[in-house]
Amino acid sequence: MSSSPSHFVVTFVCDDKPGIVHAVSGAIVQAQGNITESQQFSSEDTGRFFMRLQVETTADYEAFQGALAPIIERYAMTAEINTVGRPLRTLVLASTSGHCLTDLLVRQRDGHLTIEIPQVLSNHDTLKPVADFYGVPFLSLAITDAPSKTAFESEVLALVEEHDIELVVLARYMQVLSPELCQALEGRIINIHHSFLPGFKGANPYRQAHERGVKLIGATAHFVTTELDEGPIIEQNVVRVDHSQSPEELRAIGQDEESRTLTQAVRWFAEHRILLDGVRTIIFK
Amino acid sequence: MSSSPSHFVVTFVCDDKPGIVHAVSGAIVQAQGNITESQQFSSEDTGRFFMRLQVETTADYEAFQGALAPIIERYAMTAEINTVGRPLRTLVLASTSGHCLTDLLVRQRDGHLTIEIPQVLSNHDTLKPVADFYGVPFLSLAITDAPSKTAFESEVLALVEEHDIELVVLARYMQVLSPELCQALEGRIINIHHSFLPGFKGANPYRQAHERGVKLIGATAHFVTTELDEGPIIEQNVVRVDHSQSPEELRAIGQDEESRTLTQAVRWFAEHRILLDGVRTIIFK
Amino acid sequence: MSSSPSHFVVTFVCDDKPGIVHAVSGAIVQAQGNITESQQFSSEDTGRFFMRLQVETTADYEAFQGALAPIIERYAMTAEINTVGRPLRTLVLASTSGHCLTDLLVRQRDGHLTIEIPQVLSNHDTLKPVADFYGVPFLSLAITDAPSKTAFESEVLALVEEHDIELVVLARYMQVLSPELCQALEGRIINIHHSFLPGFKGANPYRQAHERGVKLIGATAHFVTTELDEGPIIEQNVVRVDHSQSPEELRAIGQDEESRTLTQAVRWFAEHRILLDGVRTIIFK
Amino acid sequence: MSSSPSHFVVTFVCDDKPGIVHAVSGAIVQAQGNITESQQFSSEDTGRFFMRLQVETTADYEAFQGALAPIIERYAMTAEINTVGRPLRTLVLASTSGHCLTDLLVRQRDGHLTIEIPQVLSNHDTLKPVADFYGVPFLSLAITDAPSKTAFESEVLALVEEHDIELVVLARYMQVLSPELCQALEGRIINIHHSFLPGFKGANPYRQAHERGVKLIGATAHFVTTELDEGPIIEQNVVRVDHSQSPEELRAIGQDEESRTLTQAVRWFAEHRILLDGVRTIIFK
Repeated sequence: MSSSPSHFVVTFVCDDKPGIVHAVSGAIVQAQGNITESQQFSSEDTGRFFMRLQVETTADYEAFQGALAPIIERYAMTAEINTVGRPLRTLVLASTSGHCLTDLLVRQRDGHLTIEIPQVLSNHDTLKPVADFYGVPFLSLAITDAPSKTAFESEVLALVEEHDIELVVLARYMQVLSPELCQALEGRIINIHHSFLPGFKGANPYRQAHERGVKLIGATAHFVTTELDEGPIIEQNVVRVDHSQSPEELRAIGQDEESRTLTQAVRWFAEHRILLDGVRTIIFK
Repeated sequence: MSSSPSHFVVTFVCDDKPGIVHAVSGAIVQAQGNITESQQFSSEDTGRFFMRLQVETTADYEAFQGALAPIIERYAMTAEINTVGRPLRTLVLASTSGHCLTDLLVRQRDGHLTIEIPQVLSNHDTLKPVADFYGVPFLSLAITDAPSKTAFESEVLALVEEHDIELVVLARYMQVLSPELCQALEGRIINIHHSFLPGFKGANPYRQAHERGVKLIGATAHFVTTELDEGPIIEQNVVRVDHSQSPEELRAIGQDEESRTLTQAVRWFAEHRILLDGVRTIIFK
Repeated sequence: MSSSPSHFVVTFVCDDKPGIVHAVSGAIVQAQGNITESQQFSSEDTGRFFMRLQVETTADYEAFQGALAPIIERYAMTAEINTVGRPLRTLVLASTSGHCLTDLLVRQRDGHLTIEIPQVLSNHDTLKPVADFYGVPFLSLAITDAPSKTAFESEVLALVEEHDIELVVLARYMQVLSPELCQALEGRIINIHHSFLPGFKGANPYRQAHERGVKLIGATAHFVTTELDEGPIIEQNVVRVDHSQSPEELRAIGQDEESRTLTQAVRWFAEHRILLDGVRTIIFK
Repeated sequence: MSSSPSHFVVTFVCDDKPGIVHAVSGAIVQAQGNITESQQFSSEDTGRFFMRLQVETTADYEAFQGALAPIIERYAMTAEINTVGRPLRTLVLASTSGHCLTDLLVRQRDGHLTIEIPQVLSNHDTLKPVADFYGVPFLSLAITDAPSKTAFESEVLALVEEHDIELVVLARYMQVLSPELCQALEGRIINIHHSFLPGFKGANPYRQAHERGVKLIGATAHFVTTELDEGPIIEQNVVRVDHSQSPEELRAIGQDEESRTLTQAVRWFAEHRILLDGVRTIIFK
């Protein structure tokens, strides 16, 4: 036991059954912990139980983990224990459009987004000045053909390995990832799609939206899976538009929604608020 | 010329070219009219020009029409002249779900919706008490097979004829219309779809929305065409939902959006604020 | 113990300290309960702890209550135990404007609002047909002077007594209540104010909003206290308006927000989701 | 007449009377102009008429102005003629908080905000790196007492003079301006207030909002007048919050609304879409 108090965030996922909360809270009492935030959900779709706790305790990480270990084993839980406020190691992939990257960097610097970005990787060098301004390392590798694309993706995996990356963010990175990369990063790679999915999948969603004459356009942050634009949805926002706006104007208007939707998804992930229930996300806001 | 002032709403649609506004405003000056509301739009998609005016004048309908006739002919305009506030003759089709019908009736009675409803027609008698309460004639004709469906649709056309109907509203009417009926009523029949189109077309959109795990659900009011759920969109609204809500709860939550979205679309139509630009709508709010 | 399972909703409020959750969950395990919904909050403002649980159990009400009694005593909790879905006995006060009353009645009848309304009391008879249609007893008592106002308020208290009323709803009831009545009903009387409080307190808020030229108008559901328009806020909604709308149009537009805001507040109250933290509300949605 | 076409934006304000639109459109026909956008409004509050046009013409500025001059005189109009897309000369005042300044700079650079910023003036040097990054001149003058405040305000007026400034933006500039400066810049100085006015005027609005327990917080962009927080409102936005958020979290959440609300107001001003109708604004979106 250390003398200064710690603040942990814990997530549990297991099959739902009676008594879990009592078992969990008992372990926390045993670790002299005080629950400061608690959320839970029982999924009728999958029969799974989800819980997120924030706990203040005088126990250190090891002691706290030790106190929880027996119940994690008893209920066959998938559990994660983190220190509240520890910045998440995040790799950002981008192309030429800077609004999402800028928003992530601004909020991180302002202290409203608990991530650290050891590297921005892009297939263009357009955004180097942005990364430079915010003091974040920037690397660009052009993608012009299949081999250069393979090289780019190898670099992604090398960076994930080197920096012990916990989250990869596609901040308007305009390349389709290979199935291999999608699988290697499953559950820890987030994309922003510039439409209100499942409407307007694929390319040029703002043009599609204009042609269909929709009255709201939106953005969707979702986990990347091997099925394009079909991964679990994390967050969505929309904004009202009207007949007078061109596809180009829709694009300009939609960028705000893209930035704030992606940043919100990254924030929740960094705070361990997102759990997966099959193809759906549980968000403990 | 009559001695008491009139208030007209006029819509014009024609190919865009210079001088239209001057020609129109000149005709209105000639009719001693004063423009109290004016909106216009030039479509880059189709090259068409759209205009909606409200005009106060001492001219009566005939004199006002006579003043506008030359410019309508000169520019080959599709034009409509109506008296502001004249209730639109509206036929409502419904099935068993009453929230949209109730909303239309409540707002009409409160004076916030300038329609009159000479008849509600349903394929069930569930909503008869609602129509009775609001003093609106109600007729139900069961649809159980192809002939009864044909009979129902014949009744629709007969009612349209008999009451000189200007708008048919599908207020959660749960039958797919025949292509013939769609064509016969083209441009004057509005449906409410219980999803944010183009997402979740077809049946059970709330179940689809739950399964896809979307974070916003919505409703779409649109013109009915022969292509199911593909007609020009008039209005859309969304509401935020989360992982904890069942398809049934989504349905309950979504009904508010359905009601207010449909009522809004009907209101705009009744006020002659909706014009068609190909597959898109121009809404002069 | 009964043989058929029960579903209870429990709320606890007490001073915050470690171990509460474990103690509560232990009592629930002892009552063979399964927690299906759980929310908690520790207030930094007041040092109070708030919890709301939904529990499925084979225990009947008495046995369940017995299992919780010791911890309620130990932590000096203010606790409430109710059966999920039991309709709340609700008295509605109204004047001449029917949109809020109608919305409550429509949703109650549709099964989306778990209240029962043994009586609507009004100072006008305007809304009698609405109450009649929905089969709810209606009584009107004119208020024309101080004695008739006193008589009206005495009737309120008599009805609260007679029907064991748990909630009084001011559904656009346009009279200021006496301090005595406010105090007698404290914590169980909800009003809808037709502005976004704290802006535009007092009379004619839509006129005030028009004159100030605000770009959003709103509605606020709040508990009634002796300080006019100053009670704890439960829910607020806004809608966008523009320069072209008259005070009368703002009023018409705002009525939707009033209805849905009030109904939402009543729903949360009926589901025991609202707890008081000094002058602020805790809403466990 | 020049050979290449021009695109002008024109605003007219005058007393309302019949025939204005015809007179205006006649002058535009005479200038061989084509109206591409047109909006008008007749104020019942003040009896004033407001119009904004966008006109394509082969006439140059002088010829166009000459064609309009007679009707401007005849109707005693306040009129402005500008070239569409000409960047507005804008002076930004700031203090230490960078989110609003950053948003303005990002959008200007992205081409979504037609302003040029010859100078950022601040009473702190905190934001110099931001200005440097975006290549905008930055000057800081500390305000520590009455004389230094007077010096600061003299510098504002000197910069307005030197750069022929058309708009002064208070981008979270945390000093109250002197009445003299307010008057000197009347109608061309915009502030962002971090609350939904008229709620929470004055200092620490987020703390006030937390204490009052509101469920939505907002931001208000308004013209600055000598009455603090009472100038004509241009735009307002809100965001939903709940009981769990501290004043500090409200502040962080609200900053997004502040940025986008201020930027929107500046964009409308730069596009000549804002006209004043007494203490209210007419916004031709």
